[in-house]
Formats: sequence, structure tokens, C-alpha cells
Amino acid sequence: MTHMDFDALVALLRRIFLANGTSEAVADILARNCASAERDGAMSHGLFRMAGYVSTLRSGWVDGRAQPQLEDGGASFLRVDAANGFAQPALAIAAPMAIDKARATGACVVAIRRSHHFAALWPDVEPFAQQGLVAIAMVNSMAYVAPPGARHPVYGTNPLAFAAPRADERIVVFDQAVSVLAHGDVQIAARDGHMLPADAGVDAAGQPTRDPQAVLDGGALLPFGGHKGAAIALMIEIMAAALTGGLFSAEVDWSAHPGAQTPCTGECLILIDPSRSGSAVGFADRVEQMVTALQEAGQARMPGDRRFAAREKAMREGIPVSAHMLRQLEALTTA
Amino acid sequence: MTHMDFDALVALLRRIFLANGTSEAVADILARNCASAERDGAMSHGLFRMAGYVSTLRSGWVDGRAQPQLEDGGASFLRVDAANGFAQPALAIAAPMAIDKARATGACVVAIRRSHHFAALWPDVEPFAQQGLVAIAMVNSMAYVAPPGARHPVYGTNPLAFAAPRADERIVVFDQAVSVLAHGDVQIAARDGHMLPADAGVDAAGQPTRDPQAVLDGGALLPFGGHKGAAIALMIEIMAAALTGGLFSAEVDWSAHPGAQTPCTGECLILIDPSRSGSAVGFADRVEQMVTALQEAGQARMPGDRRFAAREKAMREGIPVSAHMLRQLEALTTA
Repeated sequence: MTHMDFDALVALLRRIFLANGTSEAVADILARNCASAERDGAMSHGLFRMAGYVSTLRSGWVDGRAQPQLEDGGASFLRVDAANGFAQPALAIAAPMAIDKARATGACVVAIRRSHHFAALWPDVEPFAQQGLVAIAMVNSMAYVAPPGARHPVYGTNPLAFAAPRADERIVVFDQAVSVLAHGDVQIAARDGHMLPADAGVDAAGQPTRDPQAVLDGGALLPFGGHKGAAIALMIEIMAAALTGGLFSAEVDWSAHPGAQTPCTGECLILIDPSRSGSAVGFADRVEQMVTALQEAGQARMPGDRRFAAREKAMREGIPVSAHMLRQLEALTTA
Repeated sequence: MTHMDFDALVALLRRIFLANGTSEAVADILARNCASAERDGAMSHGLFRMAGYVSTLRSGWVDGRAQPQLEDGGASFLRVDAANGFAQPALAIAAPMAIDKARATGACVVAIRRSHHFAALWPDVEPFAQQGLVAIAMVNSMAYVAPPGARHPVYGTNPLAFAAPRADERIVVFDQAVSVLAHGDVQIAARDGHMLPADAGVDAAGQPTRDPQAVLDGGALLPFGGHKGAAIALMIEIMAAALTGGLFSAEVDWSAHPGAQTPCTGECLILIDPSRSGSAVGFADRVEQMVTALQEAGQARMPGDRRFAAREKAMREGIPVSAHMLRQLEALTTA
């Protein structure tokens, strides 16, 4: 096990993206995004994803050199055509105007379409909260999740992420799939030979199973909380696809691109400027009071805390990378 | 069992509100809201609530004659001080300006504070979807819900409601508490002597229980989906209270008003105009396609369908009201 400096890891990942045909700008953003997930202990969206990125780029399914186009949809509405590229570069280009709109009017919807999202979602909302805004993000993906009673999957794992500023520069942030498990977690369980928890998935015959491979082979994931989680999945399909002009999860068809792994769908963000609030006490102070109430009730860890702790440790000690993973990554730097 | 005409039931409920000190405007709105819930089969938020409304009004905890004040918070931000009155009249006053803002800019946040919400939440979002907008509503309530691992409740049952237009004038709408059960359902189970499902609540010692009375007597409800539901509860506290200037669920203190039953907290709505979307196909048509995909996968019923079916039946046959309930309601018409 090596411990890598964050910047060194970013540089290595950047070489991989460039070797596989992305633009400099795309390589910069995706390398930093993926290294951040590994640094923060979100392994299912960290280095584990690099082989999938490369496979997808080589398949011709995604355009690693796409030029996202902004379309002004109104004082509080910003449309982004990601042009069959990755979602993160599209959001990076949209963010300054989206922040301006949110600050000028109190709110802004960012509607990204034709975008591939293969990463964690919290990196999309964190920067807005760090600048004092509230951010909600929703992404649909590929049809892996079956609503209760359905015969086949319709929804993506459709993550919902939320971030809000706290006092003293910290933030509250969560990022959760509507499925009991993220698809990446199922892939890791299959790789490592672990069983899934009960109620997480069904096999191709629609029967409950704890075998990750049975879920991956034509089965489906189940939403958390039964029909309530399924309702949230539906909301996210409507917000991330119908509202943006992107594809629904069940419409994604990469059959002409063997090796493709990234969903080409849509992403919707809602940014809100809490300084518009009528609160006599500042918003961030109120959020801090909420966190204190939770701590006093015995909830030791806030959403995001585990990642922040992993981040601090990694910045101090470096990011642990196995020799095996390092060899895999080095191999990906040659196209 | 009598079958009452909708308008006759509204008139009866209106007399109850007026006899207990509300203004005409408040009586109109709450009577229609409560009768609508009963009509639509949402019994836990229908006539069952009337005794609670009256008890609260008589306690002096809520102002039945409050004059909500609008405060223009920006081109896409509308603040409403409900002035210790009910949330529904405050929203009714805010709705025209909120719709104008959403249509003018693409989005509008409505931040209502010092508001009592004792009703179902779907009536707050339905009218916006019927006018072609997407609406998300969040309300916090009273500390009934304990996050996993906490020693006492911190969150309200904090419903989330969502509505979006479909083709042919129908809408998609859901309204769900973050608790496995709504507080009203627990009250009804206690009244009727039914057990709760497993994983729905804990007793005062924090132990799992299926006894509704044990949950009501110092215990707590649990969020759906464990920590994922708890994260949504936290988001709703932040949106409905911190962002609006309202109280957190755990801050509500009605101890000086015996008989009070309505939470005085806040409500946040997000309205979005989907005509701003980049979709080549109209938004409502895309939502309709999503509904069709769900039906083809075997999901027979969409969120809201049960209510729409009950509504149609009640409009045809009248709303069933027991003789016992009718006597109770008549008794409430004299202060």
C-alpha cells in the first residue's frame, strides 16, 4: 500500500484521461473529482471507477472533448447542453452564471441534459454550500431500480444530494442513492464476494436475493423505504430528465457502444440564496443550531462527517493506494 | 353512514371554524382543505383533524384571524410571515405572486414562517401542477421522529410533497412523511386498537415497539429507510425552518397553551416553470411517457391515483360520514 499525495494522484488520473482522448479541461475536472472521492473514502466512486471511464471513452459512447453550451432560460433558469460529454465539466462552465442568478434573484435552476454522470454527486453541491448557497442536485442514471410490484427496473439509482452552509465554514452535505445500495457498491460486493443486505435487490425472476451477481445479471435494485423511496426516484426522473430535456434512465441505449458504462441522461440542480430568508438569526447559524440539537440527542455523526474526516486524514498522511490499483492505473495511461 | 355532498360538508366545517373564532377567509380555506382530504380518502388529515383544530383554536395557541404578510425577497424569492396563523391561508395569499415570479424567472421559492400546518401537504402543491408548474413543498412539524441512534426525537414527521403536470390535465403528485407512519396514522391506530408495523416506532426507552400508545407516550417515530430517511428529515428542517425563519420541530413549545395540537413552524415551496426546459417534447408529455413506462413495468397505480379515484367516487356518490362523526362535528359548531 502506497500513500499518495492528492496532487500526485490527480496528475496520474489526468494522464489517464488525456491518454484516452479527453480535452485538457475535461481531464482536469474529472481527475480532481475522482481523486477527491478516493481521498474522502467514497471508494465506490473513486479509483474503482477509472476502468469504467476509460472503457466508456474507448467505446465512443461519450465525447471526452465535448463543448458544453449554456442557454439562458430566464433570470432563474439556466439550461446546459452537455453535448454528450461528462456532467462535471458542463456544471463547471455553468456554475458562475448559476451562482450569479441565484444571488440576483434568490434561486436558480440548472438543467443539464445530454450529460454523462459517473461520479459521486456530493462534489456537485459542496462548492455551492461553501459559497453560502443551499444546493439540491438530482441525477438519473440507468434502469437498475424496480419500484415495488414492477416486473423490471425503470428507475436509475438516482442520487439526491443536498448541501447547506453551517457556521465556521463547515457544511451539511449528503448524497444518497434512492436504491438501498449504490450500483457501485453492488459491483464491489460482486468483486469481493460479499453478500448484499436483505431487501436490497431482486434477481431476474423478481425474487429477493442477496447475491450481488444475481442483481447485476438481469435483476434489479430496490428503492430504500419501499414506495416512499420509489416516489423519490420518480421525482428525480422528472426533475433530471423531463425538466432538463435529458433521457429517462430506461431510455439509455448504449448497445451500439460495447464497453460503455456511463449513463447519458440529465442533471438538475436547485440553488437557493439563504440570505433572502426572513430569519432574524443568520441561516448558517440556524443550521449550526440544528446540528447541535442532533448531537445533543446522541447522533454522533452528521451526514458528510465521515468524508470530512477521511479527507483530513488523507491530506495529512496521503491517500492509500494499493500496489495492484497503482499498476492498473499505470496501465490505463497508455491508450 | 350518511353520504354528504362536498359543498354541504365544506359548509358544516366552515361553521365550526367560524364558531371557534377564525376569520371568514381562514374558515373558507381550512373547511375546503379538510373536506377535500376526507373526500379523497386521506382520512388521517380529514374530519379526524377537526377536533384538533378546535382544541388548538380554543387554546389560544394559533391566531385564527391572522393577517399573513408578504415580503418580496427577490425576483424568485417570496417570504411570507403567517403571523402565527395557519399555513394554508398564508399560501393562498402568496400563490398568485409566487406563480407570477416562477413564470417570469423560471423558479420561485416561497418561504413561509410562523405558520401552523395541521393538514395534508398535497393540497398545497396540486394547484400549481394543475397550472402547469412543478411544485415541491416541505413542512417541519413537532419533534416526533428520532434519527437512528438518537436518544430522543428531534425531527418532525416532515412531509415532502411533489407535483408535476401530466398530459391531459392529470398530474403526478405525492405527499409522504419522512416517518414510516404519519403521526395521524399512529393516533388512529391507538384509537382503533391496531398494532403498528415493525420498524415504525420506539418507546420512551428507545426500544422498538408496535404499540401505538407507547409511541405516543414519550416514544418516537422512526424515519423510513433508516439514515437515508433521516437525511431527508434534516433537509426538510433546514428548508422549512432555517431557510424561512420558522422554528425547528424541536423548538415548538406549546406548554403555555393546553389543548394546542398544531405545530407552529415553517413551510418551504419551490416552484419551477417547466416551459423553460430545453426539452424538444413538451414537459407534460415527457411526464406522461414516464408514467406509461411505469405502467408497462407493472406498476398499476401512480402516486395520487388512489386519491383521485376516491375523489371521483365521492363527487358521484357523496362523502361517507358516520352518524357518530356527524354528531361530533355538530357539537363543534357551538363554541
